[in-house]
Amino acid sequence: MPKRPVLDFWYEFASTYSCLSALRIEALAEEAGVTLRWRPFLLGPIFAAQGWTTSPFNLFPNKGRYMWRDMARRGGRSGLTFVRPETFPQNSLIAARLALAGREAGWMPAFSKALFRAQFCEGRNIAEEAVLNAALKAAGADPGVAYAASRSEEVKGRLKAETEYAKSIGIFGAPTFVTEDGELFWGDDRLEEALDWAKDGC
Amino acid sequence: MPKRPVLDFWYEFASTYSCLSALRIEALAEEAGVTLRWRPFLLGPIFAAQGWTTSPFNLFPNKGRYMWRDMARRGGRSGLTFVRPETFPQNSLIAARLALAGREAGWMPAFSKALFRAQFCEGRNIAEEAVLNAALKAAGADPGVAYAASRSEEVKGRLKAETEYAKSIGIFGAPTFVTEDGELFWGDDRLEEALDWAKDGC
Repeated sequence: MPKRPVLDFWYEFASTYSCLSALRIEALAEEAGVTLRWRPFLLGPIFAAQGWTTSPFNLFPNKGRYMWRDMARRGGRSGLTFVRPETFPQNSLIAARLALAGREAGWMPAFSKALFRAQFCEGRNIAEEAVLNAALKAAGADPGVAYAASRSEEVKGRLKAETEYAKSIGIFGAPTFVTEDGELFWGDDRLEEALDWAKDGC
Repeated sequence: MPKRPVLDFWYEFASTYSCLSALRIEALAEEAGVTLRWRPFLLGPIFAAQGWTTSPFNLFPNKGRYMWRDMARRGGRSGLTFVRPETFPQNSLIAARLALAGREAGWMPAFSKALFRAQFCEGRNIAEEAVLNAALKAAGADPGVAYAASRSEEVKGRLKAETEYAKSIGIFGAPTFVTEDGELFWGDDRLEEALDWAKDGC
């Protein structure tokens, strides 16, 4: 049996379009016969390096207005009702560390999806412990174990290394999909194209 | 017979993704039964207002590298080979004025397509008179008449007004498609969605 192709799914918990992808990527990847690697990272340091102190959707108001409208339209196509949380962008540091703490145990995707839904379907703040706990429980993780791991130097270092690596391969936004032969596809609207490339290499 | 829906196609001559749309929009619009209004404008003043002195693809190198790769991939799907011109972005002021001078005479789309091809398929500079002249001739326009009109206060004012209007309705990039009910769709990758909306209003 030939090896299944692998697609890296780079996402940022504070990113609206990452949410769109997280909530639809699994069914599409399964259909395409592609194995996903969920790779949470932080966009903050990448934005900071280009002089941005917040999301471009806040820096450029017309772009922000458009994004929220676009999210509503595209969410509707997936049967999702998006809400605009009071805080945007949210602090995603603990969320990303927790997600990476669940990589080996296998609950990272379920935790990530639960957290995206809490943030952009229910308007909750993912920097709050109650919200994080609910997502951990929904994913079948033990919050005590998960928090302890998320505070370890190993997991903190893992997140830093992932973010550095993302930057080094040219990632500048989220979501970004990267195929095994190194092709980058940026944005939820490139997900299908990325899966095609992963599958057929063209 | 019901009135055909109208879609505004806002484009900037220096924009790579505007080129992609210009070279494929007519067939798709015809198929959808949608009438196009070609609306060239200048992104420069809109970028300048948000503190950018050049294209974001130059300001943010990883984004720029990605864009050229993305253009090659997407161009390939339309059977086009894109080249990266020596100068990017190019000065599009005269091009936009000339295009607007041809609005009533009807050669604006043909001129625009010829100029996009010269720039991004042949690597020419659209600020050069020889390149502009060739595009005018390809579109069946008389260069003498066209240039005279492009230098008139009327056409200069038209371009300024179009650019101001674009900004006022929230346009922040190109291409942007706007339906009669005021929905904005930004980017070549939203062209099909914009045509669907224009046709069905959803």
